[in-house]
Order: sequence, then structure tokens, then C-alpha cells
Amino acid sequence: MIAVLKPGTSVRQRDNLILWFKSQGLDVHISEGQTHTVLGIIGDTSRVDIDLLQSLDIVDSAKRVSETYKLANRKFHPQDTVVPVGPYKIGGGNFQIIAGPCSVESEEQIIEVAQAVKKSGAALLRGGAFKPRTSPYDFQGLRAAGIEYLLEAKKITGMPIVSEIMNAEHLPLFEDVDVIQVGARNMQNFELLKALGKTQKPVLLKRGLASTLKELLMSAEYIMAGGNENVILCERGIRTYEPSTRNTLDLSAVPLLREMTHLPIIVDPSHATGQARLVQPMAMAAAAAGADGLMIEVHNDPMHALCDGAQSLTPEQFDELARKVMRIREVVAG
Amino acid sequence: MIAVLKPGTSVRQRDNLILWFKSQGLDVHISEGQTHTVLGIIGDTSRVDIDLLQSLDIVDSAKRVSETYKLANRKFHPQDTVVPVGPYKIGGGNFQIIAGPCSVESEEQIIEVAQAVKKSGAALLRGGAFKPRTSPYDFQGLRAAGIEYLLEAKKITGMPIVSEIMNAEHLPLFEDVDVIQVGARNMQNFELLKALGKTQKPVLLKRGLASTLKELLMSAEYIMAGGNENVILCERGIRTYEPSTRNTLDLSAVPLLREMTHLPIIVDPSHATGQARLVQPMAMAAAAAGADGLMIEVHNDPMHALCDGAQSLTPEQFDELARKVMRIREVVAG
Amino acid sequence: MIAVLKPGTSVRQRDNLILWFKSQGLDVHISEGQTHTVLGIIGDTSRVDIDLLQSLDIVDSAKRVSETYKLANRKFHPQDTVVPVGPYKIGGGNFQIIAGPCSVESEEQIIEVAQAVKKSGAALLRGGAFKPRTSPYDFQGLRAAGIEYLLEAKKITGMPIVSEIMNAEHLPLFEDVDVIQVGARNMQNFELLKALGKTQKPVLLKRGLASTLKELLMSAEYIMAGGNENVILCERGIRTYEPSTRNTLDLSAVPLLREMTHLPIIVDPSHATGQARLVQPMAMAAAAAGADGLMIEVHNDPMHALCDGAQSLTPEQFDELARKVMRIREVVAG
Amino acid sequence: MIAVLKPGTSVRQRDNLILWFKSQGLDVHISEGQTHTVLGIIGDTSRVDIDLLQSLDIVDSAKRVSETYKLANRKFHPQDTVVPVGPYKIGGGNFQIIAGPCSVESEEQIIEVAQAVKKSGAALLRGGAFKPRTSPYDFQGLRAAGIEYLLEAKKITGMPIVSEIMNAEHLPLFEDVDVIQVGARNMQNFELLKALGKTQKPVLLKRGLASTLKELLMSAEYIMAGGNENVILCERGIRTYEPSTRNTLDLSAVPLLREMTHLPIIVDPSHATGQARLVQPMAMAAAAAGADGLMIEVHNDPMHALCDGAQSLTPEQFDELARKVMRIREVVAG
Repeated sequence: MIAVLKPGTSVRQRDNLILWFKSQGLDVHISEGQTHTVLGIIGDTSRVDIDLLQSLDIVDSAKRVSETYKLANRKFHPQDTVVPVGPYKIGGGNFQIIAGPCSVESEEQIIEVAQAVKKSGAALLRGGAFKPRTSPYDFQGLRAAGIEYLLEAKKITGMPIVSEIMNAEHLPLFEDVDVIQVGARNMQNFELLKALGKTQKPVLLKRGLASTLKELLMSAEYIMAGGNENVILCERGIRTYEPSTRNTLDLSAVPLLREMTHLPIIVDPSHATGQARLVQPMAMAAAAAGADGLMIEVHNDPMHALCDGAQSLTPEQFDELARKVMRIREVVAG
Repeated sequence: MIAVLKPGTSVRQRDNLILWFKSQGLDVHISEGQTHTVLGIIGDTSRVDIDLLQSLDIVDSAKRVSETYKLANRKFHPQDTVVPVGPYKIGGGNFQIIAGPCSVESEEQIIEVAQAVKKSGAALLRGGAFKPRTSPYDFQGLRAAGIEYLLEAKKITGMPIVSEIMNAEHLPLFEDVDVIQVGARNMQNFELLKALGKTQKPVLLKRGLASTLKELLMSAEYIMAGGNENVILCERGIRTYEPSTRNTLDLSAVPLLREMTHLPIIVDPSHATGQARLVQPMAMAAAAAGADGLMIEVHNDPMHALCDGAQSLTPEQFDELARKVMRIREVVAG
Repeated sequence: MIAVLKPGTSVRQRDNLILWFKSQGLDVHISEGQTHTVLGIIGDTSRVDIDLLQSLDIVDSAKRVSETYKLANRKFHPQDTVVPVGPYKIGGGNFQIIAGPCSVESEEQIIEVAQAVKKSGAALLRGGAFKPRTSPYDFQGLRAAGIEYLLEAKKITGMPIVSEIMNAEHLPLFEDVDVIQVGARNMQNFELLKALGKTQKPVLLKRGLASTLKELLMSAEYIMAGGNENVILCERGIRTYEPSTRNTLDLSAVPLLREMTHLPIIVDPSHATGQARLVQPMAMAAAAAGADGLMIEVHNDPMHALCDGAQSLTPEQFDELARKVMRIREVVAG
Repeated sequence: MIAVLKPGTSVRQRDNLILWFKSQGLDVHISEGQTHTVLGIIGDTSRVDIDLLQSLDIVDSAKRVSETYKLANRKFHPQDTVVPVGPYKIGGGNFQIIAGPCSVESEEQIIEVAQAVKKSGAALLRGGAFKPRTSPYDFQGLRAAGIEYLLEAKKITGMPIVSEIMNAEHLPLFEDVDVIQVGARNMQNFELLKALGKTQKPVLLKRGLASTLKELLMSAEYIMAGGNENVILCERGIRTYEPSTRNTLDLSAVPLLREMTHLPIIVDPSHATGQARLVQPMAMAAAAAGADGLMIEVHNDPMHALCDGAQSLTPEQFDELARKVMRIREVVAG
């Protein structure tokens, strides 16, 4: 950790600060510049409150040298993490598409969609049973029944399933769900993350609406610190001032996260854009940017979807998307 | 609800869309403009998926005429809501200051701070027992013991207490807490909001880091829809591109929320700015903008605070703030 | 234009507002809903101040039905605009790469880079002579000499050249420049846009740091309204809260602008990300999203570049990028 | 300047980098930490490209120790700058209100508004003659005639006048204008800033829509570097994701700029909020936050204002605002 002192700091003030660091078991190097003194603080500085340090009268600025995420950090784990899900692998050069409806609406619906997307090349089936809706008056999902229908679709098609959890108390219902999704709104629901850290289930962790990449990794760290290293990161758009799309898909997150972490990174262009017409070009762009997979909303009857119909593709549109994406993927891998 | 059709929409396409609305029990007015046809959809449109509507090929744009929040809406409840907390009232022309440390650290600490802020005019005591921290390695709060120390301080000073909840399972521990706080990161933890809606406890609901005012009101609506109308809103800064402050305090939220809702609105300048030096000017500005109260972090030894020391005031600084704010308040009220 | 009146508006108030519209030569349709009255205002509403309308006591909200950009609007010009630049075409299914250094530094440098990027497939040569720098103490460009060196490189390689203008008074210096670039900071320098509208030079208009797509099109409209329809739009990243990249590249702008306008759309991944390592994945993603071209910074000696060296590729890196992008382009076109 | 090297950097790589610094006339201190080496670069580092440095393979991160703004920096000029305008002083404990219409529409209008606002306590008269409008089809101002009407109002009332410039070529028209305003869209029109730096006119510099406080100070530095130190800064709202106001007024900018610079800081709540109803509370808040003055839009007939009528106050509303603000001001100063 580095602390830059303001011009005019007296030697006594400087030495008091150094004493404060030393009282915390840290060592300090002093480097005198033309106008500023710079302190290099050496040792385990993870407990030093950098905001407090920056607020001191004599401190101009402070900066951490080491990242606060450790288990998710590629520096300490250079090898890609590969998360196994049923017969499939996510990460480490493998590319998988997760597809399915926003909400599970009935057993027939989820089976029909599952069969269609499997035929087009999707590996995993997604479907929401518990739905986080902005309004308490909107459809909140079929809940336990939705999970059952998903399991039925899994039995018939052999596809592993992905579904979102909103409450750690529901964990018993997710026993046979293959990947548990944490939605953007719950990315910093730390109690939920801790509970998932105690399981060994793969967790698909979506980036929060206004979260930095470092915060996303700190949330992954919550899960990993509990002992569960099967975390898949998902970029799904961030909130900006631009009103034309629901969110702004941040594809530079893909190569950046690739450097910062060893965890797999997938992209959800459906929620990011909120518009079916934009899903195919953004899916192709995500594959071109190097993503490890995609998460795509598909509905057999988008006009009557109970939630987020606007961003769902028909099975035919999904089929075209999957074919184009696979060709992009060849260019990237080649 | 209004739907604007694209130029070139055929009469058959238009009539199909109208049939779709009518099949949902809605009535439709047609208004032909120079280039566009406008449909006015009449009836209970709250179940119509506006995103889906906007994504149809023939629809140029769509717009809701009525807000989706009802219980929190001033249109239907013109009178200010007043939330009673012990001997104090929040809202309806009353102004209250909530003060205390970010985290409860010990019984002595919380009692000492409570006595100091009470003397300076604070009505309620705040203190965190369960702490949402970005890093799993940071101090997570004293938990149950922290609540006990707060209750001890309440017994000694008579101050009602405010503390943050992170998990509905902890509700039994909050039985004697006077106001339950929902933090910014949990503003859209809908499962937690629903659980709080079933209690009658006053809830202090903080605006999410990237939440619109409408979303804040929709989250209040979740609590109110459960039967608990004792909701206090709190502006605490939003995330922007500006790096000089932790967040950007959005004080125009105060007069805007005043128009949109009957619920009380308080401001937290400590978390918004993250810097002790900015707390007093922003507290004065919040009072001048018409807030119903303030939430201020005060610590008897900010240099050693276990969390967020950078934004804590000393009791002396708080005393000066309280005096200045009260004089501002007189100008506003007068 | 549509105006929604508040519940409780009296008939007299409503009729006064209707009179105000009629006094401006407009016609009004009235549609009564369950709680709100909706007025449809018919005629040329482009002069009605929508902000003023929305601020009236009796008006709940107002909405334009027609876009305010006309010449740039695909609704009125369904055919793609193709901008001819020397022997090349931009737009309408053609794909071109513009490459070169951020700043022209010497005649040797610009010729060397030009020859290298031409060999790798770049069609146009870019190079800054007048540089907009945040600090007055940073290198401001070679100015007139820079333009001359570019023209020399054009003579030798046959590549058309692109350079940025900062002041309409410099227009005479740009007589032999093939494409005049307007930088992000000048996107709303309306005096400059008007001056460019009076020429017939192709203009490469970069999106402002915090500009919406509609504002970008309104700025294109300034140029087109003057008589110059040769406008090329350029997405180059927008400002968000994320600190890991200089800007956030908004690739959904590509398919969105494709729907809104007939003008060509290119992408600049170098300025967007600010980091050489991210340029290739983002260039590939931009091509996959359907861009009409790319603008890439290339420097023969990035370590000594006088400006923006951090985001420049070496000629070797550019060669690899160009090959990969062309393969992506085949997938998109096919 | 500080550079943190990545773990695993070899001694040879480190020494090469140090040589590169030394070749630029700089000195380097080496400090070895547990995992990282930190270099302190000493000397005039203002020409070192920090982005380039950060992009090097062996560099983890880099940080400037000194600000790049010098003339505007309070560190080097601790005393408040006071800008004299006619008989008034701006800055240094003085508080002034600038009021008037968005656009000058006629001689009668501007004189009538001037007389009204003067009576209520405004010191300076504002009025737009050259108007930056997003659309080329909107009213662009009366231009030269507008300036003449302002000068007539100045003659009659004795009020110094403030008007916006959009083009350095118009400078001769501004010879008798007392304060030249640079609008938010031109904050980084560096050619215009340089031209204003060569005059001695007070310049009111508005913060750009998405500009950081440091960028605002760098733009002030452009003017000051030319020899003109009469710069007044103006906070007028920044662009965020919140749709309820036109912009988000960032009042923490006031105390922050107070620390960073010696220049006066005023606030424009009219353009920030875009809604007349919000102007008074935000004006009071700005005064409470410690601003040196306000800029308020006032119109004698807001319903017919040719531009920005929505945010204009009537003279009666302004009178109330001025009285309340003066009482807030007493609390702040006292």
C-alpha cells in the first residue's frame, strides 16, 4: 500500500502516521520526492482502512498495491478454472450456450423449448421459477412447481438446468438443479452468497447493474471463501444514461475479466439489450470478444410470455443465432 | 397506456393488435395523426408487458399513463405519512436526526456515542450490527451482540434505535429494534422486503446505488403491499463517473420524491460522500432542500473505527453540524 | 405529440391548454381514460417546447411521436447511404479499416506506418495534426506541418487520409484531406458542425462522451441540414462508472443506429478501451456486431508515442487483427 | 509519480524501465514490498504518458502524485480568487445572484426581466444571444441583436451582463459584455478556451455534462495558461441514469472544488433540474453547500419562452427564492 503525504506535512506528523502503521504490525519505506513524500507500507495491509487513510489531513492520496480478491485472482491461479456441469465443461477453452425461457410457465412449454434449443446446439436449459420483479404486482414465478417442470424437462432431454435463487431458505428445492443462478440484483446479497459458498453447486453469478468488475470478483470471492470454487461469471449489461437499450452491454468486461481472473465468463445479451432484434448481433459480438458461453432467452410464443417477452427469440431465431455464433467461435478459437 | 404505431402499419395489423388488447379485457381509442396512429389503451393495463409491446414490429413506442406504484403514490394519498418512532415523529413537517457509528464495536463505545449525539440534538441512535461489506475478509459486524449493546444504549439514553438487517431469518433479533434499515445493496432483495412487509416495524429503505426514484418507490410498494405502511425513504448517493466522491448525492431526489410520494424522505450524507469533511456542507444542503431528516455517522474515535472511519464525524463536529442544520431548518420551515 | 393530463384537471384548464395548441396552428384529439385524459396533438409539433409542456401543473407527462431528426432518419431514407472516399466506399455493405497513429510525429513516421497498415489491408490512413488534449501542457499536435506529412504519405501510398479538425478557421488547411474527423469533445460544437455542413467533405462524426444516440443523430443533422450528406458515424465508448477501461464501448449502438439511420457506422476500439491489449477482441466484436468499418491506432514505436501510446498497436499486432477481423466479417456478410 | 511492478518482473526488465525514466531526465527510487516492487519517479513527470506506462506488461498500475493543474490549484495559491465584475465581487466570501431569461427575445423583455430581478436582489443579468441547441431546427438565438438588447438593459439598470459565446470569431461582439459564459457543451472546446485566455474578460466556465472536477479544472487551466485568471466555475448538473430530472445536480462539487481550487464556484439549478418547481429547493441547497453564487433563469412569461421555458421562474417566484437564499446565506456565513 502506498500513501502520498501532502506538501507541508511536518516530520512529527509523518512519524506519527508511521507509528500508527507500525502499531498494526506493518513496515514503512519513506521516499522523498520534489514536492511530496511517499510512504510504502509493507506487510499484510488488507485490514488497513484505505478510506480512513485518505481522509487524514496530511494524506493526499493512498493506493492499494495488491488486489483484495485472492481466490478469484489469476495472479495466484494462472490456470483457467473449468466448471463441470453434467456432461459439459464451462471455461478453459470450452464454449457453451445456455438457452430457455425467462420464466417457466408450464410443463409443456419448458419441454417444448428445451427440445427446440437442444436441437439447435444449446448445452444447458435455463428457466426461471423464482422471479425478481421490480413490481410486487408482476408475475413472481411458479416457484416450486417451476423447478419441478424444469426437472421433468431435464429428465426428458438430458440437459442440465440453470435456475435463479432469491432466498437461501429455498436451497433444498435446488438440490437437483445443476447450476444455481444469482441475479444482478442479488450480486451483493452477501448472506445468500455465503450460503452458496457452503454448497458445491456451480453458481452462475451475474454482474450487478452498477457493479465494477472488482466488485463482481469480490462477490465471487464470498462464494469461494466458503469453499465452493465452481463460480461462473456473467456480464449482462450495466446501467448508463443511454435510454435506447435497457442496459449497456459491456463487452470489454470479457477480455478484462480474462486477465483478472481464472473463472469462466459468459454473456447474457437478452437481458442486457431487452430487445429481441439486438440479441443476435450482440451474441455474435460476445463470442468474438472471447466469451466462454452465452445465455439466451428463447420462448415458443414470445407474444404471450409472462415476463420479458420483448427480449425472447423464437426457436427459429435461436437456431440461426446458434449457427452464426458457432462460426464466429471457430474464428476466435482458430 | 399509449401505443404509437409506425408509419406504414396496415389496417389489418392495427386491428390485430387491437384484438390482442381486447382479449385482455381492455378498451382501445384510435387517434390518427399526420404520420402516426396513436392507440389509447383503457382499463387496468398494469398486466400489459410494455417491453413486449415496444418490441412489436408495428409499434414505434409505448408509454404508461399511470404509475405502477399505488400505495406509495401521493396521487392516491395526498396527506403526508408520519411514521411514529418512540416519542418521535418522522415526516409531516417534523425533522429528526439519526446519528451513531457505522458499526457497533463495544457496549462502552455505543453508549458513549449515544450520550454525546443525544446531547447535540439527535433523536435516534444508529449502529450497525450486521454489516454488508464488499470483501468477505472485512469486519462483518458483532451481529447478535451488537444488537444487545444497542438495546443497552437505548435503555440508558431512551433513544429509539435503528439498525440494518441483511437476512429475514434475523428478524427475531430485531424485535426491540425501533427502525429496521434496508441497505442500498438490498433495496431489490425482494424476499427481504416481503418479509418486512409482514411486520409493523418502521422500515428505513435506502435507495440502491443505481436505482431510479421509481424503482425506490416500487421497493417501498413491496413492503406496503404486505401491510406495513411505515416506510421511510433514504437518499444516500448514486453511482456516477465522478471519482472524487464515493457516490454522488442526488439532492433533487428530495423535492421530487416529495411530489411523487407521501412517505418521509431522509438523507445520509456520510455514506454518499465517504469523506468527513463533506458531511457538514451536504447535511446543510439536504436540510435546505427540504429533507425530513438526516442520518449521520458519528464515532468517538474515528481513527480506530473498524469500518467507514473516513466518513465519521467526531462528537464535536456533529455538535456543530446539528446547530447549523437546525438554523437552516428554521429558514425552510419559516 | 401526446400530452397526458393529471387526474383532477378541470375542463376549463384542459380547454385552455387546447386553445394554446390551436393558437400554434395545431389540432388536438381528446381521449378520456379511466383516470387520465390524453391529448393527441396533430400537425407540425417540432416547435412545441416539450419540456415546458411537461412542466405545466396540469400535465402529467408528454411524449413526441415523431423523431426530431429528419435527414438522418431511416424512416424517410430507407436506403443505406454510401460515402465514397477516393477509390473506397463506406457503408452499404462495404467494410473498411482506417488505421494510423494517434498523432503525426514526423514525415518518416507517418509514411512508415502508412505503408505497414496498407500492406495489412487498411483502406484509409488516420493521423492527428490538431490534437484535443485535456491538459494545456500536453503535446497539441504538429498542426499545419502534420497535415503536410499526411498529404505526403497519401501521395506515396495512395491512401485517402482522415484527420481531426478543432476549429472551422482551419478548414483551408483541410482542402486535400479526404475525411474530416470531428472528435467526441466537439460533437456538440454546433458552430463547427454548421461550417462543415457547408462543405461537401465526408465528415467522420464521433459520438460524445455522454451523448445519446439521438443526440449523435441530431449532430449529424446539423451537418446534413447545411447540405452535406456525407456523414460517417463513429462509436468510441461512453463514460460510465467502471474504472477498468477509459470508456465503455457501447456495441449495441451499432445495430441500433442501423435501424435509426441510413448513415454508415464505424467503431473505434482504441480510444474506447485505452489499452492495446483490448483492441483486438473489441475490434472483432465490433465487426461481429455489424459495423461498417473500424478505426484503429497503430504506431511503429508505441513506447515513444507522443500521445495515447497505451492504446496503439504495433504494425504486427495490427496485421493479426486485420486478418481475424476479415474472417469475422465473412461470417457476418455470409 | 509512482509505478507498481507486477510480481515476477525480472531485475533486467525493471532496470530497463528505470533507464527509460532516466532517459527522460527523471530520478527513480526503488522500494521492494512483499509481493510488488514500487518505483517512485522523481522530477518533472508531467510529460510522462501515464496511460502508456500502465499498459506495459510489467506494470501493474501507476499513479500521479501531483495534480496536472497548476494555476488553478489551491495548493500553490491558497488565497481565494476574487473576480471583480462592475461594482460586484465574485468569490472570497461574496455571494452574488445572476438572473435573467434563457434567451434574449426582445429589448422590452430583457429590460423588464432585468428591472424585476434587480429589485429582488440579483447583481448580474444573464441572457442568451447565441444559443447552443441540440436540434438545428430549434431557435438559435437573436445573435448580435440579442447582445445589443442586453447592453441596452445594462445601460438602463446598471447591471453587469453575462452571455454565452459559441465561437471565438464572435469575440468582438462581446467587447462590452461583462462576463463571457462558456457552456457545458463547449467546456472542452480547447480552441475557444485558448482564445478566451488571451482576453482579460471574466469567464464563467460551466462543467461539461460528463466532466470530472479535474477536467473542469484542466479547462480552467487552458484559460489561465493564456494569461486570463478571471475564471468562475459553474456546477450545472451531470448526466446520470436517473430520468426524472434533466441532469443530476452534484452539490458535493461545491465543497470539493473549494478544496481543490481558489477559483469562485457558482451553481445553476435551472439547467440542472430542467423543472421550475425544483429550482427553489436546489438554489437553497446550493447556498447551504457553500456556493459563491447562483445563476437562475427568470422569464416574465414562461409559457411563451422560446427556449427552456420549463425551467424558468416568474419574477414573483424569483423574488421568493432570493429572499430564502439570503437567509440561508446568513446561516452559512455566520
